[in-house]
Amino acid sequence: MSEKSIPYKIYLSEDEIPKQWYNVRADMKNKPAPLLNPATLQPMGFEDLRPVFCDELIKQELDDTTAYIDIPQEIRDFYKMYRPSPLVRAYCLEKALGTPAKIYYKFEGNNTSGSHKLNSAIVQAYYAKKQGLKGVTTETGAGQWGTALSMASAYLGIDCKVYMVKVSYEQKPFRREVMRTYGASVTPSPSMETEIGKKINAEHPGTTGSLGCAISEAVEVATKTEGYRYVLGSVLNQVLLHQTVIGLEAKAALDKYGVTPDIIIGCAGGGSNLGGLISPFMGEKLRGEKDYRIVAVEPASCPSFTRGKFAYDFCDTGMVCPLAKMYTLGSNFIPSANHAGGLRYHGMSPILSQLYHDGYMEARSVEQTAVFEAAEQFARVEGILPAPESSHAIRAAIDEALKCKETGEEKTILFGLTGTGYFDMVAYQKFNDGEMTDYIPTDDELNKSFATLPKVEI
Amino acid sequence: MSEKSIPYKIYLSEDEIPKQWYNVRADMKNKPAPLLNPATLQPMGFEDLRPVFCDELIKQELDDTTAYIDIPQEIRDFYKMYRPSPLVRAYCLEKALGTPAKIYYKFEGNNTSGSHKLNSAIVQAYYAKKQGLKGVTTETGAGQWGTALSMASAYLGIDCKVYMVKVSYEQKPFRREVMRTYGASVTPSPSMETEIGKKINAEHPGTTGSLGCAISEAVEVATKTEGYRYVLGSVLNQVLLHQTVIGLEAKAALDKYGVTPDIIIGCAGGGSNLGGLISPFMGEKLRGEKDYRIVAVEPASCPSFTRGKFAYDFCDTGMVCPLAKMYTLGSNFIPSANHAGGLRYHGMSPILSQLYHDGYMEARSVEQTAVFEAAEQFARVEGILPAPESSHAIRAAIDEALKCKETGEEKTILFGLTGTGYFDMVAYQKFNDGEMTDYIPTDDELNKSFATLPKVEI
Repeated sequence: MSEKSIPYKIYLSEDEIPKQWYNVRADMKNKPAPLLNPATLQPMGFEDLRPVFCDELIKQELDDTTAYIDIPQEIRDFYKMYRPSPLVRAYCLEKALGTPAKIYYKFEGNNTSGSHKLNSAIVQAYYAKKQGLKGVTTETGAGQWGTALSMASAYLGIDCKVYMVKVSYEQKPFRREVMRTYGASVTPSPSMETEIGKKINAEHPGTTGSLGCAISEAVEVATKTEGYRYVLGSVLNQVLLHQTVIGLEAKAALDKYGVTPDIIIGCAGGGSNLGGLISPFMGEKLRGEKDYRIVAVEPASCPSFTRGKFAYDFCDTGMVCPLAKMYTLGSNFIPSANHAGGLRYHGMSPILSQLYHDGYMEARSVEQTAVFEAAEQFARVEGILPAPESSHAIRAAIDEALKCKETGEEKTILFGLTGTGYFDMVAYQKFNDGEMTDYIPTDDELNKSFATLPKVEI
Repeated sequence: MSEKSIPYKIYLSEDEIPKQWYNVRADMKNKPAPLLNPATLQPMGFEDLRPVFCDELIKQELDDTTAYIDIPQEIRDFYKMYRPSPLVRAYCLEKALGTPAKIYYKFEGNNTSGSHKLNSAIVQAYYAKKQGLKGVTTETGAGQWGTALSMASAYLGIDCKVYMVKVSYEQKPFRREVMRTYGASVTPSPSMETEIGKKINAEHPGTTGSLGCAISEAVEVATKTEGYRYVLGSVLNQVLLHQTVIGLEAKAALDKYGVTPDIIIGCAGGGSNLGGLISPFMGEKLRGEKDYRIVAVEPASCPSFTRGKFAYDFCDTGMVCPLAKMYTLGSNFIPSANHAGGLRYHGMSPILSQLYHDGYMEARSVEQTAVFEAAEQFARVEGILPAPESSHAIRAAIDEALKCKETGEEKTILFGLTGTGYFDMVAYQKFNDGEMTDYIPTDDELNKSFATLPKVEI
């Protein structure tokens, strides 16, 4: 098909919304390591996980052999509210860069949660409802995941309790209000409603909270309240599975125009967006059918892949959640306060960690002023104000496109534009005012954090 | 075509983006009255308007006979960044209401400006650039229009100076930062940069500004600065013309599925969205080809159509802009401080005013707590957090759908969902906290304001 015929935005029809998720673990020779019980350090099975997670989601979490898993029709109907998401040919960005590269991005921000998080939120809320539960609990930091879960819960008519890191609760009142508009109860964490919240408030009076603490509160409430379960927006295998709708749609749209990407780029925090985008391409690579360069982009201030250890670690700072084998900076690691936006998690999806460890993908870290420069350039020519998280992928995509400009290579670049930055204007203001700075943790800092890694032999 | 086959979202292809705007004035027997010079009260021609507006836009402003006006290819290319916008079948809302009515909405919020305003911003910026100008000036209140113009200006590489009502500048810092990210200069109004700003600051120390004052400042800077012109986001004939892409796309999408709306609903502030949505349908009605019920919805706190006078009035409080014949509450009218969101303009598009006066459309006013109830209900089932402005149309659409539930009629309702409410969370918070109240101006208040209408005999 001729170049000219590729539109700015490739939309699939609603019939083309994937009917199955693709489980990349089925094609991995080295499977991701099992979750461990934080008390016994033994692998956790279905029964061990039941107090925390919904049954069907545990099955998905543990299933590393079934390649395709059906998407229930009710979920596909919900997806129709905002999917298929557009695959955009970045003609304007290409022109602005003067690059021979062809740039595509899969845009997941055209829904009120403002990101890809909704793709998994609806699934987790759906299975909770199907199991006859009353509601779900979760934590949220910046608020994207909490918003997505609130939307999904409102749609299905189940209860949603969000523990929001206190400093975000106070500094991001607008995110909080979106969640409340969708009927969620939003509690600043640490609260006085849970044992762990009371304990932390007593030990650290005036604390503004952390994601680790909020997770522990949400898990405590889920396990102690009849009819509730805990849900999580990233890292877990099940979440990556749900997010494969991103990659499956992107691939179908490219296939329709006979386009094969050379480089696939995504930002990486917990790994859900990146994993979802790359899964179907990675599958081809694992099966030896095709080759792609796959690049994870992370903040230099929270460099799990590029400077972390591949080891078992706690998923939360409260150490109540299962341990996962992953690239980690240590569960005590907290990124510098100057770091704006998300991608603050100390660990990384076990699936992606294994793939990276086995050499199937690259990783690079970028500094935040360079990220916001890319964000601004992108916003001005492509008309979408990107989330700071997504802008990590934009930075890397622009860098690759500029390399092509030097070499004259007409590479095809695909990246994931996970969301919009409408609730991140404090960070943009810093950038606009020239007050944004970079921070890279020292080796000493990382070594101190690594020293807290649990001793696990399995 | 069978009911089942209508998707949730009807997307036209990029080729189907309209190639011409439709100028409804060509089909009106009673044309809208001409603009008058504020000093002489005489009708203004091309030369009179040149110091303020771009030449091509003046032609469009004055042309009431050409039915179709070509859209330049460069503008259509820009439209491809976010158009065609989806026409959504509100299956989930219909189900939640239990109505036999079929509800469709044309969603204009899927772009970073968050509203339909971008449709005209790009046109006005384009003609300014084509005329060799350096830049454009404008005013903004809540910030939607300023954001749209900033985006269009950044894309075309021209300068954009926005005068933002001081109270909004301070209370809506995020909107301001979006504009700055797009390279606009944003000045709180009244400023000390203009004669009128200095005068107002001297007369009213500590004033937090008004839209009327910001308009006057923007016009002063445009007329006094070499290479600049003033642009406006609503009310003017040219703006309605540009916004007909909304209605043309909506009609094309419905035609594709053989659907004819019975009722067409839009919110009305200055009238640009409503005028754009209804124009092609109104054309059929004016030519006697088809009949539609067309309903304008306005806030009870700013009821230009339902309680205003059809008379010549100033478009700004500074009285530097041309006078227009329109439904108006008087240029001194300021809606109650309890009124959240936009739709605060004292007047109304002269085109729509004439059509309403001639009986071609209805108008109704709604109170804001009822509007936010509709907004919340819509958000929870349709997954889009609507702008307060757009929610006026939602309120009326729900009311019509509930009437159908009573009568059993299967009417088809089309409404305009102009934008998203991400920057309106202060208003949502008020609603969530049960602190939102209603206000309806008394007859005395309106009569006082009407007393300031200029005496014009023409």
